Amino acid sequence: MYAGGFTGKILRVDLTKKEATTEPLPPEVARDFVGGAGLGIKYLFDEVPAGADPLGPENKLILASGPFTGTTVPCASRMAVTGKSPLTGAVGMALTGGFFPAELKFAGYDALIIEGRAETPTYLWIKDDVVQFRDASGLWGTTSGDCQQMLKDDLKDQNIRIACIGPAGERQAKVACIINERRAAGRKGLGAVMGAKNLKAVAVRGSNEVVIADGEKYQAARDDMRRQMRESPVLYSEFAKLGTPMVVDLTSALGILAAKNWSATGQFVPVETLGAEAQKQVNVGRNPCQGCPVACSQLKLARNGRYAGTLAEGPEFESFYSLGTQTGVDDMDAVIAADRLCDELGMDTMSAGVVVGFAMELYERGLLSKEAAGGLDLTFGNDEAMMALLHQMAFREGLGDILADGVKAAAEKLGGEAAQYAMHVKGLELPAYDVRGAKAHGLNYATSYTGADHNRGYAFQEIFGIPVPKEYDRLAYEGKGELCKWNQDIRTATCDCPTMCAFLLDTTLPATAAQNTAALLEAVTGLACTPEDVWALGERVNNLARAFNAREGFGRADDTLPRRLMEEPLAEGGSKGQCIPQANLDAMLDEYYAARGWDVSTGTPSRARLESLGLGYAADQLGV
Amino acid sequence: MYAGGFTGKILRVDLTKKEATTEPLPPEVARDFVGGAGLGIKYLFDEVPAGADPLGPENKLILASGPFTGTTVPCASRMAVTGKSPLTGAVGMALTGGFFPAELKFAGYDALIIEGRAETPTYLWIKDDVVQFRDASGLWGTTSGDCQQMLKDDLKDQNIRIACIGPAGERQAKVACIINERRAAGRKGLGAVMGAKNLKAVAVRGSNEVVIADGEKYQAARDDMRRQMRESPVLYSEFAKLGTPMVVDLTSALGILAAKNWSATGQFVPVETLGAEAQKQVNVGRNPCQGCPVACSQLKLARNGRYAGTLAEGPEFESFYSLGTQTGVDDMDAVIAADRLCDELGMDTMSAGVVVGFAMELYERGLLSKEAAGGLDLTFGNDEAMMALLHQMAFREGLGDILADGVKAAAEKLGGEAAQYAMHVKGLELPAYDVRGAKAHGLNYATSYTGADHNRGYAFQEIFGIPVPKEYDRLAYEGKGELCKWNQDIRTATCDCPTMCAFLLDTTLPATAAQNTAALLEAVTGLACTPEDVWALGERVNNLARAFNAREGFGRADDTLPRRLMEEPLAEGGSKGQCIPQANLDAMLDEYYAARGWDVSTGTPSRARLESLGLGYAADQLGV
Repeated sequence: MYAGGFTGKILRVDLTKKEATTEPLPPEVARDFVGGAGLGIKYLFDEVPAGADPLGPENKLILASGPFTGTTVPCASRMAVTGKSPLTGAVGMALTGGFFPAELKFAGYDALIIEGRAETPTYLWIKDDVVQFRDASGLWGTTSGDCQQMLKDDLKDQNIRIACIGPAGERQAKVACIINERRAAGRKGLGAVMGAKNLKAVAVRGSNEVVIADGEKYQAARDDMRRQMRESPVLYSEFAKLGTPMVVDLTSALGILAAKNWSATGQFVPVETLGAEAQKQVNVGRNPCQGCPVACSQLKLARNGRYAGTLAEGPEFESFYSLGTQTGVDDMDAVIAADRLCDELGMDTMSAGVVVGFAMELYERGLLSKEAAGGLDLTFGNDEAMMALLHQMAFREGLGDILADGVKAAAEKLGGEAAQYAMHVKGLELPAYDVRGAKAHGLNYATSYTGADHNRGYAFQEIFGIPVPKEYDRLAYEGKGELCKWNQDIRTATCDCPTMCAFLLDTTLPATAAQNTAALLEAVTGLACTPEDVWALGERVNNLARAFNAREGFGRADDTLPRRLMEEPLAEGGSKGQCIPQANLDAMLDEYYAARGWDVSTGTPSRARLESLGLGYAADQLGV
Repeated sequence: MYAGGFTGKILRVDLTKKEATTEPLPPEVARDFVGGAGLGIKYLFDEVPAGADPLGPENKLILASGPFTGTTVPCASRMAVTGKSPLTGAVGMALTGGFFPAELKFAGYDALIIEGRAETPTYLWIKDDVVQFRDASGLWGTTSGDCQQMLKDDLKDQNIRIACIGPAGERQAKVACIINERRAAGRKGLGAVMGAKNLKAVAVRGSNEVVIADGEKYQAARDDMRRQMRESPVLYSEFAKLGTPMVVDLTSALGILAAKNWSATGQFVPVETLGAEAQKQVNVGRNPCQGCPVACSQLKLARNGRYAGTLAEGPEFESFYSLGTQTGVDDMDAVIAADRLCDELGMDTMSAGVVVGFAMELYERGLLSKEAAGGLDLTFGNDEAMMALLHQMAFREGLGDILADGVKAAAEKLGGEAAQYAMHVKGLELPAYDVRGAKAHGLNYATSYTGADHNRGYAFQEIFGIPVPKEYDRLAYEGKGELCKWNQDIRTATCDCPTMCAFLLDTTLPATAAQNTAALLEAVTGLACTPEDVWALGERVNNLARAFNAREGFGRADDTLPRRLMEEPLAEGGSKGQCIPQANLDAMLDEYYAARGWDVSTGTPSRARLESLGLGYAADQLGV
């Protein structure tokens, strides 16, 4: 049915049985879910039963690229990693770029499904059709960088691409991520899932090419997209030079760069030391993903003091927040060093940094003693304490053992008032944007199927002022339910499934994203595809993800925000006086559920909407 | 004249003019100097004039492999890096293994001669015949590991091999080394020479094969050598499993593992935490050099405490001394972490560790205040202070700025009694073996053309008790002059020039080394070669090196040992009561010079001996 883009083959690996099998990617699945998050959520819903322990052998990890991955479609070198999140208990899905995703495609697979649990530390070595389960005892305990180099040396092939966990994932720290090259499938604790499976790494090398169904259509669609990219006023002129961290200045100006565990947004605004001008001083090179013409990824180098000599890919914008403003650390070199440390230890910079800021607020409020902190002075801004605590989290030492599972679990263990300061939704730590000053983005935190996730429905209208589909006042509540749905669906359909880089959507192509995706899908795969089909794809995947969560017991009550955001107005800055009171959140939720065609009282997807999207089987399971 | 092994081509690179030229390797040079140290010293003598500033543009760096490099001769993947040493002012020559040397050969060059000084940070990119001078400003400041990965990514070829400097070399720290992969051309400050030339890295990729002159002879000689290796009682059974650090136990038992700046040899013997059994707990993999069947190199992983997650190639035995016993640090994980830190910063682990131990003794004796130490508590055994000081040395911060130039220069700057505790010969910091309990090895420290260098005439007879050429009492003085010459010549001829791994000589093949080398040289190169020729090669190169040093003003007075070794007998352990009094050293020197045919009063090579070795032109220059 499809003639290109897809390999048509899924590799299924059972770690318990040490069995690797391949199976076809059914044409209707390819058509309805396309790839990436779509494929991941489809297999997750179908194969991981309700109530499964995220860290048990029943959980699965689905690594899926999209039909454009490995082609010359710009910015399509990504894959989604999907599993049940140990942080949230909901859908865990995180995307990563770099070179591993294309290599997996070149090896012949649209997706790799990892099941079961190895008895002893294991790594997978996939070389085209040959799949080996290999002893990883020598790799166990290594950092992500060392692990990758050791594998390349051991396998005597420097061109292997590797996705692996660091010490944090080995210890099933729920803030652990999966690292490939210098990149991360960062959030939702999927590194802990890999660690729980005793899987240190997946090494892959492929020799196949990706077939294009219709060369002429393809060239036209791709060239058209490239032209739009060239015409963008920000993509190559600014975004390519600074990458995501260019947003530090903008969010500071808007008063929505969260600081000191969200107690000082608008007050702690270290643009001078962490902003664009300061970034230019430490940017020393780029580290583009496979085949990317933009190359936004910046390598930053600390040159002074105790962190001198430390290089990092990034910090990306979100890490400037989590390891910078969130912890009150305004020293560029320290943020670079913390970013590198998290990458090496295999910890999500975002969750890890939010956890540190959480501990710092508890410490400053006297809710956490210096003794309980193992002697660390956890005052906001103490970068040495941050570094020590990050290390302890990855190795589950001392206080780090409690913090390693994220703020929600840590607050439960610490008890008392701690939960008041745990900044998360559904267990996932909050991203940088203080959504008290960006209401649709706040609604997205509340409703995203992965928890507080800026990347599932990024409200670029509110952040960048891009008037697509129309102009929005970032501080208004009306219309934000519909906007949130719009953002989530377009993001899912044009980024998370195909799998295209989200930065393109956010900065350049929102107005034409659905058309571009449809044209490219037709050309690459040979499947008929209209912009309407693309929109339906976005809605389908969001509904199936919601159905998975509903099956796990999530409902309207979980679509909420931390108390602080609802009750504490911002004291200073460009969004001074703003918060999102419960009543306003409720109103936005009502509008959102209505737009989604979901039950307004429970937030459960309706049979009608599910059936209209070809998801009748999900309705059956939910009993709606 | 030669038919194989050699490419016959030398690449000469002038960084001042940005010119790269090739020139033939003259057949008589190939015959008389073979490769590696031989070639390096030949070109150094001929081209770097007396009095040249080691850190000035007149100095050169000569990277030379040997005729076996890139063939299947076992253990021949090495190259020598030669230049005038900024630490000693004498010949600076250090060998390294790994993959870079063979890659340089595959690119078509027996040697790379680097001249002049680039105006701005530069790296060389050598791809077969194409040589480019490229901007290294983005790489400047990076660690050795990051620099190599950045270059591979930038040049879009993961198979490039790179030799580079870290921050220490950039700052011309005289303890700086050159790193390729995880290996080092460690000693004599050659990293500072590279830094002074503004040369961050040499990246190389080659596609040529190495020709063998006589395939049948070659196979026979190689197989014979392999057989001898298999028959060795230690090579594969023990040495391959532990590598050089297996010597920790042996030297401890003999009471010759120097400790606490040589004040506590025989007393501080941390075999339990640093010895073979402890090593087995942290060895997690191997990291063999190109084509090596032995694979002695061990990867060690720190698993506990603040250093958990740190991997190192090594520490090799010498680093267990310099970063362990010498500094009084008996914690395995700390020694691993310090080793990795030195590798990343591009500092010779040996010199750097000896410097730290030196500072610690001054501190403990009240000759260095805590204030002068920048607040560091430099008590022996303080691993955190060691780590901080190592970092400061590489970046020339605080006390580190003084220490970065080695103990001799630091003692001069610090003044007073400091020089009493500066453990070096000719400015090169002492290796691990406390030669008060190994007299020929002590004489070798005193006379080696590179300064206190265990690797130029390793007295395996005294350390391992191997009775080749005959049995020796390690504590006796008689006969040690001749033995030292024997050790220096065989080492130079069968290891440093061809360029073969010295471990093979020391542990397995001393009795047959000259024969093996002669047979392989004939087979690989087509040059007629007898064991006598091999011995003459060793003597020739040692004489030419001595002539270089004599031209620089070195003489008998410089062939000495630190005061402590001559005046302070060992208080405890297997060599209790031993030292090397001046009179005994003098007697050994008399015997040594006589054996070498050098002037006994000045230590200058004689015309007769030089002419007999085809070095009449050197005699002319020395005016002898």
